[in-house]
Amino acid sequence: MEMSLSDAVSESVNQQREMVEKLFEQIAEASRGDPGITRAPYGPDETFAHNVMSARAADLGLEIRTDAAANTYMTLPGRDRTLPPIITGSHLDSVARGGNFDGAAGVLAGLTAVAAIKKMGLTPARDITVMSIRAEESVWFQVSYLGSRGALGMLPDGALDVTRVDTGRTLAEHIAECGGDPNALRRGERYLDPTKIHAFVEVHIEQAPSLVEANVSVGLCTGIPGNFRYPNARILGRHDHVGTPRRFRQDAMMAAADIAMTLDRIWQDNESAGRPMAVTFGRFHTDTSVHGMTTIPGEFRFSLDVRAYSPEVVSDVEARFHAAIKEIEQRRRVTFELGSRAEAGVGEVSPNILRGLEAAAATLNIPTMHLGSPASHDAAAFAKAGVPMAMLFVRNENGSHNPEEAMDIGDFLKAASVLTHWLVTETSNGNVAREQH
Amino acid sequence: MEMSLSDAVSESVNQQREMVEKLFEQIAEASRGDPGITRAPYGPDETFAHNVMSARAADLGLEIRTDAAANTYMTLPGRDRTLPPIITGSHLDSVARGGNFDGAAGVLAGLTAVAAIKKMGLTPARDITVMSIRAEESVWFQVSYLGSRGALGMLPDGALDVTRVDTGRTLAEHIAECGGDPNALRRGERYLDPTKIHAFVEVHIEQAPSLVEANVSVGLCTGIPGNFRYPNARILGRHDHVGTPRRFRQDAMMAAADIAMTLDRIWQDNESAGRPMAVTFGRFHTDTSVHGMTTIPGEFRFSLDVRAYSPEVVSDVEARFHAAIKEIEQRRRVTFELGSRAEAGVGEVSPNILRGLEAAAATLNIPTMHLGSPASHDAAAFAKAGVPMAMLFVRNENGSHNPEEAMDIGDFLKAASVLTHWLVTETSNGNVAREQH
Repeated sequence: MEMSLSDAVSESVNQQREMVEKLFEQIAEASRGDPGITRAPYGPDETFAHNVMSARAADLGLEIRTDAAANTYMTLPGRDRTLPPIITGSHLDSVARGGNFDGAAGVLAGLTAVAAIKKMGLTPARDITVMSIRAEESVWFQVSYLGSRGALGMLPDGALDVTRVDTGRTLAEHIAECGGDPNALRRGERYLDPTKIHAFVEVHIEQAPSLVEANVSVGLCTGIPGNFRYPNARILGRHDHVGTPRRFRQDAMMAAADIAMTLDRIWQDNESAGRPMAVTFGRFHTDTSVHGMTTIPGEFRFSLDVRAYSPEVVSDVEARFHAAIKEIEQRRRVTFELGSRAEAGVGEVSPNILRGLEAAAATLNIPTMHLGSPASHDAAAFAKAGVPMAMLFVRNENGSHNPEEAMDIGDFLKAASVLTHWLVTETSNGNVAREQH
Repeated sequence: MEMSLSDAVSESVNQQREMVEKLFEQIAEASRGDPGITRAPYGPDETFAHNVMSARAADLGLEIRTDAAANTYMTLPGRDRTLPPIITGSHLDSVARGGNFDGAAGVLAGLTAVAAIKKMGLTPARDITVMSIRAEESVWFQVSYLGSRGALGMLPDGALDVTRVDTGRTLAEHIAECGGDPNALRRGERYLDPTKIHAFVEVHIEQAPSLVEANVSVGLCTGIPGNFRYPNARILGRHDHVGTPRRFRQDAMMAAADIAMTLDRIWQDNESAGRPMAVTFGRFHTDTSVHGMTTIPGEFRFSLDVRAYSPEVVSDVEARFHAAIKEIEQRRRVTFELGSRAEAGVGEVSPNILRGLEAAAATLNIPTMHLGSPASHDAAAFAKAGVPMAMLFVRNENGSHNPEEAMDIGDFLKAASVLTHWLVTETSNGNVAREQH
């Protein structure tokens, strides 16, 4: 019985290859960046991609709905419509000059799975909903997961009034333009009740080369990192002549290099101890309007993102960061102004779903490996809301957020097969995802 | 005899206070920056300052000449006009929004000295020439010591064709506009033969707070630092997603912090061992057009100035800098492109003149302290040309190159007294400066 399900899944998923390639092509053509793909959130190219997916879903006979945040839900009805659905999907927006697969692969994996399930002539015990999510990428509105958090009624305060960096128009205007209802969101209305979702599973390309390095097609996510962030920190010292002796200097730049190397050492120690984390100073700079070769920098600006997979590591590193700042402030006679702080909790993966996905892959003879998610994902918003969550990663060359993203459709179909097999098992054998563990 | 000379020097120098204050005021009024003083090299405000000094020199009956680089020479004739003169002076230009004393104090100290010598009724054994030097500040043409090096026939290749950062016009055009002769400079003609200069002594405000800290009015320069510079270095890594695991990163920014902290440690070690030096990364930045909080910097730019008072320290630090770069390139998988390199030799102070100035200060009962020059000065160009050189520093609050420069006229007159006493002694007792040591 298991063997024949495996064969049926493999066969029916692989039959979707042409549809998958065509859909990827259609949305890419409408979203040409220069170079790469630019599918701005709540913009016409993102909406086009939603429509492409919905059109295919309609062909498959799925029910199509949208919510106040203009997300799209494409549902294969289950035998008992009162049971909480399984949701699978991802986002359809991209960064500027990004790639075609970051996000979209997850929606297509969902459509592939329901198409395969229909092809196999199966009707799931509960609804399976493929979700096209809006506005995951934080570069545009400087706030992440807008679509998923909007659906879950978890938008942060003021989010509807933030403006998109390129258009200067508010999120509320953009949502309205895409057929959403910003006033409903403002009233706190939510489309999804997290207690009434059986599970959320997201397929996503890997954003680091771990799978390439290991020569494995599919990764099983072990967790989505939590982080703390200081988007706009600065260090104040004193501008001085290049010849000023050491004991008089208040060199903001040296203080910056010092805190960076301090965090780098903490990072290295944690890695060595088997506690993976990451430190990124994405912006790290003297003031380009006044800096010069013969002036000691009296001011320095930086952004910081520190992430780890355990809440203890995140908070330990932040405590040591603050302690190091105090020491550096005294020793180098500078002042740190950290500015606003943001954080995201660690997105914990449901062990039950993880085991289910492992079993599906084993049955399908698809080698997998465990992998901490390098990046944040909509799945983290579902996890935070209490929904049992898991993710599958598809091998991808050259990282993401750039035009060189390179996902092989064969690898994608393997991930879609694992998802499909798990969906079939989960919706026939019972309610594994919500079982106590 | 010494006592009466001391009293005469002190009295006649102090009588110049009003003239000094008036001349400082006159040139300040014509050079208002916003805020502070802006006296751009080879610009009308610098020329105005030259004219103010020349007018005062004419009142004193000095001979006035200019050279092809539009420097001004104001000479008190000696008894034997065939003997090599002593030159004392400094520059009259400033940085943008700088102070009134950086440079101009040295010209006024020279005029004060010759006015005092005349007042005392003395005729020196050899000519004493006060020199108003053009264009010392490197921020304008990105080349330093243009006036003094032009006078000495030591302009670097191509210097006449460099453009001023604000006007966009060439040095040659600017020099011609100020009555100079760029073609003579192009032919390599020089106004000053270094073998026919007895000594060059420059009075300058201190550009660090060492004298303020020690509560001493006058500093005796022990040397002008040599340096190596990389004005436009960069580090190439790879832009990656913020979640990329450590082992895959090619983080240009972390490599930059690493090399900065490496040089900082070398610096600290040298200071502890009594070998003063300085490391300045004046520009140190991610690419502001592409950087972002969630992108690992794939490129980083910096400028570097490393200076020390011993040629051995300069070259040792540079060797260790290059060795560290190799190690960091391997460990962090990045590439350094150092770009163009510049250097300046250490400006060694004549021990004979230094001893003479010490003796003068002691006789005058003016406390002094030895001080390595924090900055570079025209005096270094004379030293490089083989002219016996020395410098006196005047206590100054708040550093230089900013509107807050604060020199007390009392401190200035003390430095001018030391200069005057030395000039009198040196031009009556013989040729101490050129004696073998």
